[in-house]
Amino acid sequence: MTEYRIEKDLLGTKEVPKDAYYGIQTMRAVENFPITGYPPHKELIRAFGYVKKAAAIANRKVGTLNPRIAEAIIQAADEVIEGKLHEYFIVDSIQGGAGTSFNMNANEVIANRAIEILGGEKGDYSIVSPNTHVNMAQSTNDAFPTAIHIAILNLSKGLLTVLEQLKEAFEKKSQEFDNVIKMGRTHLQDAVPIRLGQEFGAYARVIGRDITRVGQSIQHLDEVNMGATAVGTGLNAMPEYIQLVVQTLAELTGLPLKNATNLVDATQNTDAYTEVSSALKILAINLSKIANDIRLMASGPRTGFNEINLPPRQPGSSIMPGKVNPVMAEVINQIAFQVIGNDHTISLASEAGQLELNVMEPVLVFNLLQSLSILQNGIQVFTKYLVEGITANTERCKQLVENSVGIITAINPHVGYETASQIAKEAITTGRPVREICLERGVLTEKELDTILDPKEMTKPGIAGARLLFNRK
Amino acid sequence: MTEYRIEKDLLGTKEVPKDAYYGIQTMRAVENFPITGYPPHKELIRAFGYVKKAAAIANRKVGTLNPRIAEAIIQAADEVIEGKLHEYFIVDSIQGGAGTSFNMNANEVIANRAIEILGGEKGDYSIVSPNTHVNMAQSTNDAFPTAIHIAILNLSKGLLTVLEQLKEAFEKKSQEFDNVIKMGRTHLQDAVPIRLGQEFGAYARVIGRDITRVGQSIQHLDEVNMGATAVGTGLNAMPEYIQLVVQTLAELTGLPLKNATNLVDATQNTDAYTEVSSALKILAINLSKIANDIRLMASGPRTGFNEINLPPRQPGSSIMPGKVNPVMAEVINQIAFQVIGNDHTISLASEAGQLELNVMEPVLVFNLLQSLSILQNGIQVFTKYLVEGITANTERCKQLVENSVGIITAINPHVGYETASQIAKEAITTGRPVREICLERGVLTEKELDTILDPKEMTKPGIAGARLLFNRK
Amino acid sequence: MTEYRIEKDLLGTKEVPKDAYYGIQTMRAVENFPITGYPPHKELIRAFGYVKKAAAIANRKVGTLNPRIAEAIIQAADEVIEGKLHEYFIVDSIQGGAGTSFNMNANEVIANRAIEILGGEKGDYSIVSPNTHVNMAQSTNDAFPTAIHIAILNLSKGLLTVLEQLKEAFEKKSQEFDNVIKMGRTHLQDAVPIRLGQEFGAYARVIGRDITRVGQSIQHLDEVNMGATAVGTGLNAMPEYIQLVVQTLAELTGLPLKNATNLVDATQNTDAYTEVSSALKILAINLSKIANDIRLMASGPRTGFNEINLPPRQPGSSIMPGKVNPVMAEVINQIAFQVIGNDHTISLASEAGQLELNVMEPVLVFNLLQSLSILQNGIQVFTKYLVEGITANTERCKQLVENSVGIITAINPHVGYETASQIAKEAITTGRPVREICLERGVLTEKELDTILDPKEMTKPGIAGARLLFNRK
Amino acid sequence: MTEYRIEKDLLGTKEVPKDAYYGIQTMRAVENFPITGYPPHKELIRAFGYVKKAAAIANRKVGTLNPRIAEAIIQAADEVIEGKLHEYFIVDSIQGGAGTSFNMNANEVIANRAIEILGGEKGDYSIVSPNTHVNMAQSTNDAFPTAIHIAILNLSKGLLTVLEQLKEAFEKKSQEFDNVIKMGRTHLQDAVPIRLGQEFGAYARVIGRDITRVGQSIQHLDEVNMGATAVGTGLNAMPEYIQLVVQTLAELTGLPLKNATNLVDATQNTDAYTEVSSALKILAINLSKIANDIRLMASGPRTGFNEINLPPRQPGSSIMPGKVNPVMAEVINQIAFQVIGNDHTISLASEAGQLELNVMEPVLVFNLLQSLSILQNGIQVFTKYLVEGITANTERCKQLVENSVGIITAINPHVGYETASQIAKEAITTGRPVREICLERGVLTEKELDTILDPKEMTKPGIAGARLLFNRK
Repeated sequence: MTEYRIEKDLLGTKEVPKDAYYGIQTMRAVENFPITGYPPHKELIRAFGYVKKAAAIANRKVGTLNPRIAEAIIQAADEVIEGKLHEYFIVDSIQGGAGTSFNMNANEVIANRAIEILGGEKGDYSIVSPNTHVNMAQSTNDAFPTAIHIAILNLSKGLLTVLEQLKEAFEKKSQEFDNVIKMGRTHLQDAVPIRLGQEFGAYARVIGRDITRVGQSIQHLDEVNMGATAVGTGLNAMPEYIQLVVQTLAELTGLPLKNATNLVDATQNTDAYTEVSSALKILAINLSKIANDIRLMASGPRTGFNEINLPPRQPGSSIMPGKVNPVMAEVINQIAFQVIGNDHTISLASEAGQLELNVMEPVLVFNLLQSLSILQNGIQVFTKYLVEGITANTERCKQLVENSVGIITAINPHVGYETASQIAKEAITTGRPVREICLERGVLTEKELDTILDPKEMTKPGIAGARLLFNRK
Repeated sequence: MTEYRIEKDLLGTKEVPKDAYYGIQTMRAVENFPITGYPPHKELIRAFGYVKKAAAIANRKVGTLNPRIAEAIIQAADEVIEGKLHEYFIVDSIQGGAGTSFNMNANEVIANRAIEILGGEKGDYSIVSPNTHVNMAQSTNDAFPTAIHIAILNLSKGLLTVLEQLKEAFEKKSQEFDNVIKMGRTHLQDAVPIRLGQEFGAYARVIGRDITRVGQSIQHLDEVNMGATAVGTGLNAMPEYIQLVVQTLAELTGLPLKNATNLVDATQNTDAYTEVSSALKILAINLSKIANDIRLMASGPRTGFNEINLPPRQPGSSIMPGKVNPVMAEVINQIAFQVIGNDHTISLASEAGQLELNVMEPVLVFNLLQSLSILQNGIQVFTKYLVEGITANTERCKQLVENSVGIITAINPHVGYETASQIAKEAITTGRPVREICLERGVLTEKELDTILDPKEMTKPGIAGARLLFNRK
Repeated sequence: MTEYRIEKDLLGTKEVPKDAYYGIQTMRAVENFPITGYPPHKELIRAFGYVKKAAAIANRKVGTLNPRIAEAIIQAADEVIEGKLHEYFIVDSIQGGAGTSFNMNANEVIANRAIEILGGEKGDYSIVSPNTHVNMAQSTNDAFPTAIHIAILNLSKGLLTVLEQLKEAFEKKSQEFDNVIKMGRTHLQDAVPIRLGQEFGAYARVIGRDITRVGQSIQHLDEVNMGATAVGTGLNAMPEYIQLVVQTLAELTGLPLKNATNLVDATQNTDAYTEVSSALKILAINLSKIANDIRLMASGPRTGFNEINLPPRQPGSSIMPGKVNPVMAEVINQIAFQVIGNDHTISLASEAGQLELNVMEPVLVFNLLQSLSILQNGIQVFTKYLVEGITANTERCKQLVENSVGIITAINPHVGYETASQIAKEAITTGRPVREICLERGVLTEKELDTILDPKEMTKPGIAGARLLFNRK
Repeated sequence: MTEYRIEKDLLGTKEVPKDAYYGIQTMRAVENFPITGYPPHKELIRAFGYVKKAAAIANRKVGTLNPRIAEAIIQAADEVIEGKLHEYFIVDSIQGGAGTSFNMNANEVIANRAIEILGGEKGDYSIVSPNTHVNMAQSTNDAFPTAIHIAILNLSKGLLTVLEQLKEAFEKKSQEFDNVIKMGRTHLQDAVPIRLGQEFGAYARVIGRDITRVGQSIQHLDEVNMGATAVGTGLNAMPEYIQLVVQTLAELTGLPLKNATNLVDATQNTDAYTEVSSALKILAINLSKIANDIRLMASGPRTGFNEINLPPRQPGSSIMPGKVNPVMAEVINQIAFQVIGNDHTISLASEAGQLELNVMEPVLVFNLLQSLSILQNGIQVFTKYLVEGITANTERCKQLVENSVGIITAINPHVGYETASQIAKEAITTGRPVREICLERGVLTEKELDTILDPKEMTKPGIAGARLLFNRK
């Protein structure tokens, strides 16, 4: 049977499991917010460890925090960073109070562990107080956003890594498929030839822009508002401390953190987050478009486009034997939809800031960290289990090109759009090849057609048979 | 050169074009809100005509409005209803002030026209006052929402009509294509046979649900808040008037309007609008899915699915001769995206209501009326120019079925999923027909296969060759 | 050390933990989809239990499933329903494959448990096969949607219950505060008096409509597509089975389930889900507006509106002593944002259906079940910890009314809008009471003003002092 | 009566009004797409003028276009740029066909005007052909996106100008209000003092970031895909032409346009647009938050915060005399909602690209150009009619600070959070001043309190009375 200790605060008393490192504020939060059942993101917990450690170091240097207490807090914070105390971070990801419960959960776990280190009993806050000591010179309103910045910056690294891998995988396929000529399609209708390598090259390019965009989007996160305290005025935070704490945080995390230029602004505005989420949304849109293209090109095998083959990852159907589905592309679509929906939630939360604070930060950060994680997770398996294993059905692609009417576009400069239209119409209606009709109508000679209708030439800039054109003029 | 008259109000004076029926409040609004350049929706202007007419009738009966003035207001309002004064409704569709500028534009146009009818000069509000007389016993906060309700209800009728036509068109195609057996696809991969008529039957069904949904969604709009005045308490509106005005409005418009049960609620909440917008959003999603399907089935003609043909509506390309694109389906996709985005704006506006009023109603109604209009417009041309003219490529559909591996599913109950999987794998790898491999492996006899592999049978519930199955057991 | 058994399928072999009830398909899914880390929703797992049980019963009756195997499957499915095997449902909530992995996870857990019951070794699918027996006459494409319907219907009940409690709580407050006269505000500007009870009455009304809306929104979920199998044609499902399985499911679950009229439609369209999500979104919007109002009315205590008091739930700040924040309202706002964002994801997923199937169902159902759960969880604590404990600052409310200019509106019908405007302007500029200026200007007598300016009268329909008005005419 | 000429194309013939510069393709588009009633944005029409002029110049230089025809096309294109032919651009803003109708409308208007210039009759395309000459070496798929880029880049300039003005206005107010001490509020609850100038300084800062963000977001638009033709392969476009046309376009427009590095990528991807829209969305969110703050601080005048005054712009109510509402802030909220909804539509359209093209560009560009325009329009009047005229209620702000409990936070470092909490609780319960209770409890002396409780000090970083603190230790 669980044993309890009694803790008290402004509002009264509460039972806390005797062995738990959290305390009464955490208990209140658990009671108040039984919403999603999801605990805080691990990177957010670790980031709180860094924040509390840096604050203790800075407060000790400034002289406001007793060195012995500081030392214990630092050690406890290190354990948080190492993941040893994660199980005691139990407040819900969606919570009222602008993150106060996250912050107090961290303050309590660190205080109680520090008390233990100093030989005291958990709950004896006369030794180390969650508010007076662990939270010294801090407010939730600067500690929480600072932790969020650190968590996002750390998660971004992983995302950027897998994006680079995806881009490389596309580039390799682009080279591999450089000689596979296939039909280009616009409006899902036969257009003009293109090389399969060009398709994959375009995917590599857009992912390249996404890498740039995600990289740029985290630019404003380097500025953290530690020292802002309650409303950004810095009340109760010594100027020396404000410098020191951020400097220390930068050293501890290895991130290029610096003091926000305007602490009032940095405390109330959340555009730095929406900026990241927007970049993720654009990435999601691009990934979804690519996944759709891949699913289209792999459609079939017998009743679809069937231009490429995807590596089989699992039997596709519980009822249809032999069916294999493009599941790794489908999961990318779904991750994209989730990220786009998350961006919506983030935008709503961001707009709801009022005056000195945005109290909707918990739901905002829940969605943003989730977006970062699921994108990283999804892109990793998409690259490895799908993109890298794609093969081309070269012969099938070639047949589709040869069978198409769209190649008539190359004839355009030689005979004019109107004449070409009539030939095209006849080709479509009768099912006969374009070349045959051209010859029959005598608009171009066999030799001219050989030059003009070369599919590979059509996949490069230029008027096929341009010389003929100028000679003719 | 424009001549001007001078009008004045609480805040000062303004020049108003001498011949204009609008007045100083309209002028202020034009100056304050040069936002979209779009005037109010015509159905909204007409609806204001009804509201002002009904109020004048009710006020006259109650005895608070001079009959001669009432008569002039009624005549002026009739001209608004008939569309004769639309050009004087010049305030922008997006405006601050919860619609006060819409309402005052209507009050001023009707007042000035009424003044003219009574032999006065425009701007001489001692004869008929926009506020005291035309707006008598009203606030923007009841007159505007009531007008919105009327506009939506009227526009819904048009939408429901074209939806019925679309449903019928799908049903006709469903019958027409009842014998066209084609390959069903899940995950864009070959699945099992289905009839083309079944596809169109499914479209008809989902549109049928949309008709129900849109019809249900307008249910709460019958309740109008006329008489609520400023905050829903009915201050300055006599109880007799409140009954009379809505009764009159119902008679004039032919709509089943009735008094809102709770005027405070009806004045501050906008869920009746989001409810309509949600129904439109779901309709948009369904239409977009159908448009996508049609574009897929019509893809090609030579390098795509090519199962159906769409009526050509315009040359598809400025460069590719002979190309014809599914433009009537594409415009449906785009209308869907617009309606879904509008729903987002509407949701944001709805959430932003505060206390006794939602001041964001102008942007809300701008988007909602637009959604209703563009859906009606788009569905009308989609039905007429696309759906009704679809033809089937029966032979092509048949070949795709015969060429497929998916038909192996029918063998499942007879040999078990695991054995069927092995046969399927061999068929896919070798390109050989399923039937041939079955015979070779001796798992089923030729006669059994004739029974089991009948494509038409596969498009109906039942285990093909069920008798064989039970005999065998 | 974990011991493994080897399983194989079409694609090869995999190690499966020896004691695990899941099998090779689940292992593949775990490898393919390490996305969110969230397992399937508990209600979805239970729903799969019902589906598999009902199928076994129906198949046994039809004669296609061996009674002994059927019995074992039924017993295993019962254990799933009871929650005994939840830990073996380990596939990720976001996954490719239209839910095949959910379905196969269920098939494998039930098969292996059934094998055990029949005295076999886990993995010996010759005794009970996940596909041939547990999934008999089913496809993921009917089993999964049917399970989703059941899960939503069951979760809706809980939501509707807490919504009723919230509505009642608002109604109680409406009665309790019926005599508290306060200032109404439109545009956040002083308007005219209203009773605090009227505010809460309006909240009860809109929640009442939400109850209706949510109730209506689940209407189409009663129709389930069991028997549709792969694409809705019912291939491999005997007509008797199709009737029996749904009938059985209705009996087992106590839900009014019935066969979908058109199985093709029911298999490819997801509007029944977007309909529920839309209703939840509207509810979320309404809740957010109410939460905002409550936060506004409780703002202060000394520098805000301070018209109501909220029960303190936790110390509000880690730095500001004595601060108590409206955390239970804030969490409602955040839940609302999450639900609105989820609706966005759901809409995207719904629109992405193609031809015979919507493969994006996993992300759709993940968001929809989450919305249902967090709304229920949040409304429960919001009602209990906030709404039920609200108290009114009656005296403060009264003072604000008496101090306001807005009461001048009542004078309107007596002196006209233009004269009233001049008096209002003077009152605002000078800070003097409206009554005093009226007297000074001699527009109304003291006795008339007593009648007209009674605040309580202003909160009801009618022209205060209407008799005076008619006498004067 | 309108007279007509007959034109014909691949699909048949059509009547075209005799005097119209547009032709048969425009007529088809008008018939096919009667959707919104909104013509193309003026900047888009002008941009088409530039594109067609540059193409004619480049084609002439390359030698593919007859100089006399080129000259006539250039002159006609100039008239489009000057706005002389805008009335003939009549295709709907929402249309199928990926913008083919926009492009053909431009091609036809310019061809017919060129024909006229060359002395021919409108419709005699043997003189100048819309396709063969005006559209030479172009496809809709490069001409349209290039025109979009130009239109966005031009509209962005106007937006950035008004953003700079808004930022300056906020900065001026920041200085003007630097000495106005007011209560800071978090969670809408009394927090700690802040200066009104700090609030406006924060608004200036976030708008500053928006300027950076919008500026960065257009970065990828400098790359245009002219020369890509149908699918990005450059078929029918001579390499020299591809260089020349973009170079010419840069000169004509004064924009830093350059050739896209990868034309296939540039033709199929629309992330450059979603990037702009995302920046606009974030701007919209920030503006909405600021508008909300302003409406809160200006709430009242008698029953709200009443900390600032807004310039009156129009009588606020048709029923409540003297009421003035924050209409210029409300219109900003609504513009924000519109822009956020537009971003949603843009995202949906962007995701719907398939293979070589995104056919949903018309609805995308309609929304994006609208967002740019309404933001510019709205910000201009918001700055001029609202921000520049804000005044502070200094005395009222001061009283609220003095009356508050939140100042107790400054005592924290001196007495610890726990003791401070007890004092705060007593102050709130009894309504007595914090200072009085401190003295009574003897926790701090009068002199110490003078130092610690100085409100102005509290608005700057530092522990008030830090020296006391260190002395005490």
